[in-house]
Amino acid sequence: MKSNKAADLLAKMTLEEKSNQLIQLATPFFKGASDNGEITGPMVQLKIDEQNIQNTGSVLGASGAENIISIQKKHLEENRLGIPLLFMSDIVHGYKTIFPIPLAIGCSWNVDLAEHSAKIAAKEAAVSGIHVTFAPMIDLVRDPRWGRVMESTGEDPFLNSKFAEAQIKGFQGENVKESMEHVAACVKHFAGYGAAEGGRDYNTVNMSDRELHENYLPPFKAAINAGAKMIMSSFNTVDGIPATANIKLMREILREQWSFDGVVISDWGAVKELIPHGVAADEREAALKALRAGTDIEMMTHCYTENLKSLVDDGEIEESLIDEAVLRILQLKDELGLFENPFRGANTNMERDVIMSNSHRTVARELAAESCVLLKNDNNTLPLDAAKKVALIGPFAESGDILGQWSWLGSTEEVVTVATGLQNKVKENQLLISKDCEITSITEDAKAKAIETAKQADVIVIAVGEHSSMSGEAGSRTNIQLPQAQLELIQAISTVNKPVVTVLFNGRPLDLHGVIEHSDALLEAWYPGTEGGNAIADLLFGKRNPSGKLTMSFPYSAGQIPVYYNHYNTGRPKGAPDAQVRYVSQYLDSPNGPLFPFGFGLSYTAFQYSDLKISKQQIAKEEKLDISIKVKNTGSASGKEIVQLYIKDLVGEVVRPVKELKGFKKIELVPGEEHSIHFELSEEDLRYFHANLEYTSDPGEFMVSVGGNSTEVIELPFQLIPHKENQQ
Amino acid sequence: MKSNKAADLLAKMTLEEKSNQLIQLATPFFKGASDNGEITGPMVQLKIDEQNIQNTGSVLGASGAENIISIQKKHLEENRLGIPLLFMSDIVHGYKTIFPIPLAIGCSWNVDLAEHSAKIAAKEAAVSGIHVTFAPMIDLVRDPRWGRVMESTGEDPFLNSKFAEAQIKGFQGENVKESMEHVAACVKHFAGYGAAEGGRDYNTVNMSDRELHENYLPPFKAAINAGAKMIMSSFNTVDGIPATANIKLMREILREQWSFDGVVISDWGAVKELIPHGVAADEREAALKALRAGTDIEMMTHCYTENLKSLVDDGEIEESLIDEAVLRILQLKDELGLFENPFRGANTNMERDVIMSNSHRTVARELAAESCVLLKNDNNTLPLDAAKKVALIGPFAESGDILGQWSWLGSTEEVVTVATGLQNKVKENQLLISKDCEITSITEDAKAKAIETAKQADVIVIAVGEHSSMSGEAGSRTNIQLPQAQLELIQAISTVNKPVVTVLFNGRPLDLHGVIEHSDALLEAWYPGTEGGNAIADLLFGKRNPSGKLTMSFPYSAGQIPVYYNHYNTGRPKGAPDAQVRYVSQYLDSPNGPLFPFGFGLSYTAFQYSDLKISKQQIAKEEKLDISIKVKNTGSASGKEIVQLYIKDLVGEVVRPVKELKGFKKIELVPGEEHSIHFELSEEDLRYFHANLEYTSDPGEFMVSVGGNSTEVIELPFQLIPHKENQQ
Repeated sequence: MKSNKAADLLAKMTLEEKSNQLIQLATPFFKGASDNGEITGPMVQLKIDEQNIQNTGSVLGASGAENIISIQKKHLEENRLGIPLLFMSDIVHGYKTIFPIPLAIGCSWNVDLAEHSAKIAAKEAAVSGIHVTFAPMIDLVRDPRWGRVMESTGEDPFLNSKFAEAQIKGFQGENVKESMEHVAACVKHFAGYGAAEGGRDYNTVNMSDRELHENYLPPFKAAINAGAKMIMSSFNTVDGIPATANIKLMREILREQWSFDGVVISDWGAVKELIPHGVAADEREAALKALRAGTDIEMMTHCYTENLKSLVDDGEIEESLIDEAVLRILQLKDELGLFENPFRGANTNMERDVIMSNSHRTVARELAAESCVLLKNDNNTLPLDAAKKVALIGPFAESGDILGQWSWLGSTEEVVTVATGLQNKVKENQLLISKDCEITSITEDAKAKAIETAKQADVIVIAVGEHSSMSGEAGSRTNIQLPQAQLELIQAISTVNKPVVTVLFNGRPLDLHGVIEHSDALLEAWYPGTEGGNAIADLLFGKRNPSGKLTMSFPYSAGQIPVYYNHYNTGRPKGAPDAQVRYVSQYLDSPNGPLFPFGFGLSYTAFQYSDLKISKQQIAKEEKLDISIKVKNTGSASGKEIVQLYIKDLVGEVVRPVKELKGFKKIELVPGEEHSIHFELSEEDLRYFHANLEYTSDPGEFMVSVGGNSTEVIELPFQLIPHKENQQ
Repeated sequence: MKSNKAADLLAKMTLEEKSNQLIQLATPFFKGASDNGEITGPMVQLKIDEQNIQNTGSVLGASGAENIISIQKKHLEENRLGIPLLFMSDIVHGYKTIFPIPLAIGCSWNVDLAEHSAKIAAKEAAVSGIHVTFAPMIDLVRDPRWGRVMESTGEDPFLNSKFAEAQIKGFQGENVKESMEHVAACVKHFAGYGAAEGGRDYNTVNMSDRELHENYLPPFKAAINAGAKMIMSSFNTVDGIPATANIKLMREILREQWSFDGVVISDWGAVKELIPHGVAADEREAALKALRAGTDIEMMTHCYTENLKSLVDDGEIEESLIDEAVLRILQLKDELGLFENPFRGANTNMERDVIMSNSHRTVARELAAESCVLLKNDNNTLPLDAAKKVALIGPFAESGDILGQWSWLGSTEEVVTVATGLQNKVKENQLLISKDCEITSITEDAKAKAIETAKQADVIVIAVGEHSSMSGEAGSRTNIQLPQAQLELIQAISTVNKPVVTVLFNGRPLDLHGVIEHSDALLEAWYPGTEGGNAIADLLFGKRNPSGKLTMSFPYSAGQIPVYYNHYNTGRPKGAPDAQVRYVSQYLDSPNGPLFPFGFGLSYTAFQYSDLKISKQQIAKEEKLDISIKVKNTGSASGKEIVQLYIKDLVGEVVRPVKELKGFKKIELVPGEEHSIHFELSEEDLRYFHANLEYTSDPGEFMVSVGGNSTEVIELPFQLIPHKENQQ
């Protein structure tokens, strides 16, 4: 249902005006922008004139209420029909109050807190004048070489769907038109981008339709169902055709099967990139193919503005296709109330009040603490005793580079560093700091200083990791170990023979050779954001109990990639009762499974699982299965536990994963407390994509398993039967 | 067209007899076998009784004329209808005269010699009583972690097709029924096995139908067209369904589209493996699914014999499906003349005359020499001066373990080692040998001895590599470097500061860090087979000039996998004229391309390419394009060069590879000699699988390039136009 306002406007627009409505340009092109005219890099090559700019539909990367109000005012003065601009930006894990990177947020398994963080990001962005965020990024990721794994919540389609829904709700609120404190969400990247071959960004994607449907599409379907207003096409090919020109993906699946009527935007430059991809001979063909596929907005190239008119004039494309695209954009403007109030939430007073407020920082601190994953804690090295002397060593000791990529408005100056966080906990002379090791280089002198500092302390905290630019977009690495300099630092400190707590700052699962064997305790802090240092200090000193669990497997080495929990069994599984010694699916020099599996994370307390029960042995298609398990805190600290429910379909028409996450609950228990946790499964949870891609279930045997991670579970079999009358 | 003999027999067979005809058992089950009753390992679990054995259709792994004659005689005495057994074995790269591993044979680019080697293998096998070889293995391979890359000719579908045809011709001859010196070829593994995820053997395969059709199926289609009598299904899933039960693959593609009417056999145990795969609940369902998919022979499990009769009795499967399978097997027996002569070529006198004959060894030596690839030769370190003193150091100095996997009848005792090969070239006191370093361990003493030996010589030859069991079936590794001990050996020897020639023995492309920087010259010898030492000595001393070129790319590291030459361009190719610094498809810490590309190999002479010419700028669909190039030997040694022709389709409906091999010629030139080399392309060479998998060409721009490897080429554009009348 399109609004009359949008339809009325469309009727008045010339073909040129329509074509320009489909382009998105960066702020320097716009009069009134604070960076007006600063056109550098590839932007220089854009064929953009005054007329294009006056009629452009949307703006990329603007921020700040004053700036955006100024651009919009100038624009409305010059645009013939007074169509306001849409302002879109990458607000991925915070606007100025930076939350942990999405991969870390995933590890919190706390969808409510994730929603809250998106709500705060939306509020800070909205008062700054932004209308749409290019988030959440909901690509399934299995290859830690790929730098963009840091933007995703992980390797599981179910979990990613839940976080997609939560973030969309957080960004958009209940009614984005009514609420000036929310922004529209543009989910990305549609689709399959997480499978870039070799983990090399922008690389070819090769997967079966089944794989796409089973693992990569579900979060997008969930996002559409959750009401996401926009979707961004991915850079990669999908079955040989770049997503931006992929009719099957964009028209048949997205528009026809899923009935998505929101706006589709290309990723940066992706329309013109159809040429190097080799599916378009020139910009004209690129425009033709992208529009035909349903790409409404061309981001940062000029194929549409230069060619759509002549394509219509020459009868090569129907003007109705352009009308459709324009209408969707105008409709979004209407849904955001821009025709009534083109400045929407932009408000310089609110900016001062809202941005980086204490309440926002508090949530950032809480989410950061819940996102960290305790990977090792031998001999109860953690929590630290506040009375002991602590040496803080390493390149991240005082570094503000813990925001992670996609935090372009975050300020490293505002960051609470690890040093500051620790200083907030201990007396001044109890904290010794040595930060002479650089991220990728170390001198003998720096090593000596580190050792000297270590010797003076009772316990050593090593803060190491990757420079934030080593992950994120175009941040692909073949070597996923820590840089050699830091491995040398860790090796050097190990010679001191004192308890070592290693805190990791990184945007991907790492190969931890050279780290884990020298660490008594190991805390994966990811890039924890603005309040990172406080959150880490809270955890290290036991003010909070670590509760994060991995949502992406940690491989033993890059040579083992991909490693993920929901793999298939193969015909020759290693370790099967009748398995041979050699002729099974295994590596000669490495375990098959990861160093740390999906769902894994330690706590300062212990949780005991018992009494797994199911309500019946068989369920008919119309029935529900109730599952309950008792979880008890058997340790001496209060703590949160993430209770995970998995199923396995024992026999399928096509092979089924050894485990599939179908439910999870994050609970909190005081010492000695026991809770009975309930889950429910229905026939719908047992469906999968069959040989013909039909999404149905098969009657037969299933296994349900519940536990604190994907490998340590209690399991019970049950059956799905077709009809209730057949039940025993 | 099935023979009357086969049809007549079928009509007389009981359902039990038919079911048993579909099983294949190993020799220990058979009376008269030299290893009768030696049933060990998983074979013990087989439900096989006297009646099954008497009616079994074929035998796995028998060898030796006397043994096979004895088994066949006993069998014919007991089989009610006198149906002879088929004897099948893995004769992959030689019977007793072992040729280089197939990956090495691929690197010879000498299809005639490959055919000759298959002919010799067939002859030795045939006189030993074998009827069918499970070869050639023609899987496309891109992942050096996978141990079975050693069995394939490499990463290119065109080259693999040519070698498939050559080997089938060599094994089968012109008329396999008439020639007692040939065997039937069973190509394997159908299909996609080379893409086992993570390079872990038997693992899941995930690829699009397009990828399967474009890269993995063409060698199989070529093999069927070349008359291969049998095909083996692969262990892996294809689009979620194990090949052995995959109706789409086995019925629709193989039988219907390709009209294959030969025998399909499962791989070892693969019918029963449908259960752990999770597509069959039990052996009965496994039998049902495999037979329905067209798997005629069940290798080494008992699902068919135990269940087919009751499946027919219960009306769950049509007896006609069993009849079809039996008929194909009987037909193959007839095609091999077994009804007239059940012993076929088995002949103990011939065995003595033929096997390991001098002429066979001569071909093995020639092929080994052509298979080695010279990867580096700084300062003309090679060829060696026979007057200089040579130190031969390393675990492969005197090792007979240079046959590689799938040479089960080859004897390491018969191997010409590197030491023997070199001794044949130099005076006794000119060769010093130190072999104290083991493949995976080295002592300080061994290092010291190696250094001492090195010091006494003028030049050092280091013979290093992987134990042969580190590749081959189930030989997957996550670390593709040389074992640490050998890296330490190389490091130690480098301290001597003398010219170092490293000779590599391995079954996969290796990460050469730690090897290449310490080697002045580097010769990839793979596993060169029985005459390996002689062939290597021929090359090192310049009696022959290295002429092999890689058919599988050598990655810089495991973290870069997969790396292959015929990849797609992506939308953001690195190094494009307008490419950005960061936001292109690249690794931050590694080149995108391989250390050594497809088609690369050095020579002791140099070849200069010039004057690339095409017969016209445009060809119509019915025309041919003639391509010529001049190649001149500009060095001072005679040598062979592999001239390679590639095309690129500049714009496709789907993305096209940056290069596709479409022709090659191995030529020999004396110093100063220049030849004009001609190739021809037709419209058929320009076809590809479109979005709907239609195999057609598109009119438009192409690039043709010719050169001595896949990266150094001379190129020219041309056009394909639809009809001749449109031509300029």
